[in-house]
Amino acid sequence: MREIDAGHLDDIARGAGILGTGGGGDPWLGRLLAEAAITRHSPVTLVDIDEVPPDAVVVPVSMLGAPTVGTEKLPNGTETLAALRALEKARGITATHLVPIEIGGMNSTVPLALAAETGLPVVDGDAMGRAFPEAQMVLPTLAGIPASPMAVADDKGNTLVVDAVSNLWAERIARAACVATGCSVYTADTVMTGAQLPDGLVAGTITLAERLGAAARSARASHADPVAAVADLAGGVHLTTGKVTDVHRATTDGFARGGATITGTGADLHLSFQNEYLLATRDDEVLATTPDLICVLATDTGEPITTEALRYGNRVTVLGLPCDPRWTTPAGLDLVGPRYFGYDCDYRPLPTPKAE
Amino acid sequence: MREIDAGHLDDIARGAGILGTGGGGDPWLGRLLAEAAITRHSPVTLVDIDEVPPDAVVVPVSMLGAPTVGTEKLPNGTETLAALRALEKARGITATHLVPIEIGGMNSTVPLALAAETGLPVVDGDAMGRAFPEAQMVLPTLAGIPASPMAVADDKGNTLVVDAVSNLWAERIARAACVATGCSVYTADTVMTGAQLPDGLVAGTITLAERLGAAARSARASHADPVAAVADLAGGVHLTTGKVTDVHRATTDGFARGGATITGTGADLHLSFQNEYLLATRDDEVLATTPDLICVLATDTGEPITTEALRYGNRVTVLGLPCDPRWTTPAGLDLVGPRYFGYDCDYRPLPTPKAE
Repeated sequence: MREIDAGHLDDIARGAGILGTGGGGDPWLGRLLAEAAITRHSPVTLVDIDEVPPDAVVVPVSMLGAPTVGTEKLPNGTETLAALRALEKARGITATHLVPIEIGGMNSTVPLALAAETGLPVVDGDAMGRAFPEAQMVLPTLAGIPASPMAVADDKGNTLVVDAVSNLWAERIARAACVATGCSVYTADTVMTGAQLPDGLVAGTITLAERLGAAARSARASHADPVAAVADLAGGVHLTTGKVTDVHRATTDGFARGGATITGTGADLHLSFQNEYLLATRDDEVLATTPDLICVLATDTGEPITTEALRYGNRVTVLGLPCDPRWTTPAGLDLVGPRYFGYDCDYRPLPTPKAE
Repeated sequence: MREIDAGHLDDIARGAGILGTGGGGDPWLGRLLAEAAITRHSPVTLVDIDEVPPDAVVVPVSMLGAPTVGTEKLPNGTETLAALRALEKARGITATHLVPIEIGGMNSTVPLALAAETGLPVVDGDAMGRAFPEAQMVLPTLAGIPASPMAVADDKGNTLVVDAVSNLWAERIARAACVATGCSVYTADTVMTGAQLPDGLVAGTITLAERLGAAARSARASHADPVAAVADLAGGVHLTTGKVTDVHRATTDGFARGGATITGTGADLHLSFQNEYLLATRDDEVLATTPDLICVLATDTGEPITTEALRYGNRVTVLGLPCDPRWTTPAGLDLVGPRYFGYDCDYRPLPTPKAE
């Protein structure tokens, strides 16, 4: 158990941007929201999974939508509390803890902001160990824990509670409502007891994000290589270093979808994304695929670059980081493997680390 | 107070098809659903508005979606009860009465089927005095009665409860969920107390539907003109008689949208529809517009023809029937007048009845 105050947020947001593999919303925006909430209310208590009582009521809260929209249409600040209260009412529960649904971008700090406002502690972990674009893509789905009831709140004051027959149907219905209300909403769903957390979460990822963010910052301050510092700490594989020479991106069906080309010293590397970077190929070779983490960092600073922020001319290094092993099981790959997203290739593990 | 049994349904469904002005879903399908429920359970008690206690809890239930889809993707029979129970739970109420949200097509008999199943009485009336395509287009909106919470249930077992800031937002969110789950869902919403019914309902429309249906049937049996019998009883204006020579129709955004041409003895008459027939024009003259009722009947039988069933070659007579006077107030026309639907004309009252 430890306290998170505004001074911790810079490293957490940077590291969450790295682990978010391009998605989860703008980490800087998430940091500002959490900073404002902590300054106005109080610091946040962060607890380890093994400090959570078995009968605790743990609620993930997050943004759902297209990050391309989320960076322009800002939340009004009441959405997460509205979603939490709607969920509590629908399920007849009182939340005892909050947790990020994904350790990605803004969604890592959204629960911190709500925790500051409500006084609830936050569990150090998340339900993916990265970010994924769709609501059913969480470890609780693999563990048979329902997303429903899923409470959704928008910036206008609308709320809805979805009680779906599967986590995929919860995603479809919530996504449709999200698109109808402007493509950026906030959700509270996938309630877990403390006893379910080992199955439902990847442990310690808020602290991991903080360490990664600090590693990049320290390396930068000491004129060392910030990207290498991140790769060393996370067990990352270097995929390429180069310049972004093409980006195509569209906001469709409630997602930011597209691709990018990185031109470096070897053949061009191509990235495909749906909110998150999901596939990296060179010529006809698949270098890295979802569910492993494909992370795009600014080569000079180590700052993460999200899919909605990637631009022509960015000097970037692409790292591959291994995912939680539960994702590379057959059931895991059915849920989040490359074929689910329509890519015509199988999952292949990351290459062994080597100098390019 | 009187009893509705399976023998009443034929006339009610026919008359509701006429008053539904082309929409509200297939009346024959609605009749089958109600017939099956009454046969399996019990007849339904129909009560007049002035027989409902002021503190009664009156719940409209209805199908929402594109009738083009509703006629092919049949309900599984559990949707209305699921929607009612979700609404009761969300609002903490117990329904004492059911009522049609619209006296149109299938939506007139959907509450009768649920009433047979639950034993609840049905109020003789509806919230439009016709059918309209969107959920906010009800007299309760004019009276300041909220649609929310709106419970929605689909054929797969999914439910959601929408708590929206306006009846228009409830429509938008429910429509998006409807499209995502296959374009045909069932809703329970717009709860009224008994005391609110005079403001929220048009009284006696189930009985009116039954009388219209009986008038067409009797005329047919006695070799009289069934369309004339309907027009006489409803105060209808004859707009044209002819053959359907063109129909264009698309299922878009959760609606059946399109137009049709009727070629008769004079110049062609053109109809435009969005689930319901909303505009009738000849050359550049506007003959009839929403919110007045534009009813397409088979010339030889007086059977109503819905917008999704209209086909090339149908021999039809088009009648205009005056709407409830609350719809032609400025607030009423803002909500359901021709400009709301994108037609570039103002409302004009029906012409005085005359022979063509």
